[in-house]
Amino acid sequence: MQKYFISDDDFKKCQITGDDVHHIKDVMRFKSGDKIKVSSSGSEALCSIVSIERDIVMFKIEMAVQNNNELPFLVDLYQGYPKGDKLDDICKHVTELGASNIYGVITKRSVFKLDPKKKESKILRFNKICKEASEQSDRRMLSKFVDIIDLKKIDFSLYDHKILCYEEVAKNGEASNFKNIVKNIKPNEKIAIIVGPEGGIDENEASYLKSIGFIPSALGPRILRTETAGLYALSAISYEWELK
Amino acid sequence: MQKYFISDDDFKKCQITGDDVHHIKDVMRFKSGDKIKVSSSGSEALCSIVSIERDIVMFKIEMAVQNNNELPFLVDLYQGYPKGDKLDDICKHVTELGASNIYGVITKRSVFKLDPKKKESKILRFNKICKEASEQSDRRMLSKFVDIIDLKKIDFSLYDHKILCYEEVAKNGEASNFKNIVKNIKPNEKIAIIVGPEGGIDENEASYLKSIGFIPSALGPRILRTETAGLYALSAISYEWELK
Repeated sequence: MQKYFISDDDFKKCQITGDDVHHIKDVMRFKSGDKIKVSSSGSEALCSIVSIERDIVMFKIEMAVQNNNELPFLVDLYQGYPKGDKLDDICKHVTELGASNIYGVITKRSVFKLDPKKKESKILRFNKICKEASEQSDRRMLSKFVDIIDLKKIDFSLYDHKILCYEEVAKNGEASNFKNIVKNIKPNEKIAIIVGPEGGIDENEASYLKSIGFIPSALGPRILRTETAGLYALSAISYEWELK
Repeated sequence: MQKYFISDDDFKKCQITGDDVHHIKDVMRFKSGDKIKVSSSGSEALCSIVSIERDIVMFKIEMAVQNNNELPFLVDLYQGYPKGDKLDDICKHVTELGASNIYGVITKRSVFKLDPKKKESKILRFNKICKEASEQSDRRMLSKFVDIIDLKKIDFSLYDHKILCYEEVAKNGEASNFKNIVKNIKPNEKIAIIVGPEGGIDENEASYLKSIGFIPSALGPRILRTETAGLYALSAISYEWELK
C-alpha cells in the first residue's frame, strides 16, 4: 500500500499538502475512498482518502498501524562523495536497508567539488530520494540526508561504534572486525559507518579516523565498489539483527 | 593491481588478445615492464608486460598468486528481468559480492519483452560487465551471465539449496528461513536464489517454485527493490561465511 510521510501538523489536521498531492492525483491516480498509509514521527495509520483538491488531500484515519520495520539501533552512513549520480542510488538503497542518516563526505580522493551555491538544492534532492525510498520500503521512520561535509569537520563523538570500511586491511587478511562490532551492538546505540569514494580513504585520513576510534574493517575478501560497500554493511547488519 | 581474465590458450602462450589489448594500451596506458595480474580458470599470476603491439600484448609470469577470494560454494542468482538497464548494475554488483552464475528470468510480471534477435548481443553485453567486475573486484573466478530464460524452462534440479526471495512472507512475520538455509550451506554445495522483477513473483509462480523445493524467504522486514534483493542476499552470505 502506498505510504506518505507527512508533517506532524498535517497529520493532526488529517491533510496532505505539497508534492505528495501531485503524487496522489497524477501518479497514483487515487480517488476518494482509496486506502493509503500515512506516517508521521513514527506514528502510522491506515487511512482512506476523503477528498482530493488542487493543493490538498484530506483523509480520515481508519486504524493505527504497528510498524516494527526499524533496526533496533541507529546506523548512519558517511559516504565518501562518489562520482556522477551514484549518491542518488546509494541514498535510495541504504534507505531501503534501514539507514537513519546519510552524509556525503568530501575526502581527499573525492573528485566531486562542491559548489556552495548548489549545496542546498543537492541536499533537498537527496532528501526527496530518501523520502520516496522510505515510503516505498515501508519504513516507520524517514531516513534523512543530513549534509555534504568535509571529513575533518564531522563530530563523531556521539557514536557508540565507529566502522571504517577499508579494503587495505582485507589485503592483510583482516576478516573479523566488522562482524565483531555488529554482533555486539546494543539496542538504541548509535553506529557510524564510513565508506571511501572511488580510490578509497587515503592513508592519512585512515590514521586520523583510527585516532578518533574508528575500527578499520574489511567487508569480505573482494574489492567492493564505493556504491556497494554501504549496501553490504547495512544488509549484513539486517541479516544479523532482523533475521533469526 | 589491474587484473585480466584471459583464455587458457592465451595464458599458456603468455599473451593477451581481444578487447583487453585496447584496455591495456588506451585505458590504462601501460608500458613494457608494467605489472598486471593475469587469471585463467582459477590460476592466477603476477606478470610483467613484455611488449604491446596493435592486437596482442605479451607478458611474462613473475610469480603465481594465491587467491582465496571465492565463496566456498556456488551461488547462482536468478534475477527476474527488471526494467531499464538495472540488470547492468545487478550483474556488476553481485559479481563483486561473489555470485557464480547470473540469469535474467522472464516472469509473469517482467515488463521486459525479449527480442530473440537481440538475445545473443544482450548476453554478450552482460558477460562483458561480469568480466570487468570480476577483474575490478579481484575474483579468482569469472562470474558468468548464462542466459535470458523463461522461469518455467529452468532446470533447478542440480541445486542443494533453493531460496525464493519473497516479500509476501515478510508480511506474515517470516524471518528465519533465509538465515537457516545460509547457516547450513556446506562446502561445494550449489545454491539458487530467485528474485522477482518489479512487482515481485506472482502467486502461481511462487506456488510452482515451492513445489520444486524453493523456500520462500524474507530478507528483513522492509520492502526491498528488485535491484537490492540480490545484493542483500549475497552480502549476507559473505558476512556469514567470509567474516569471522
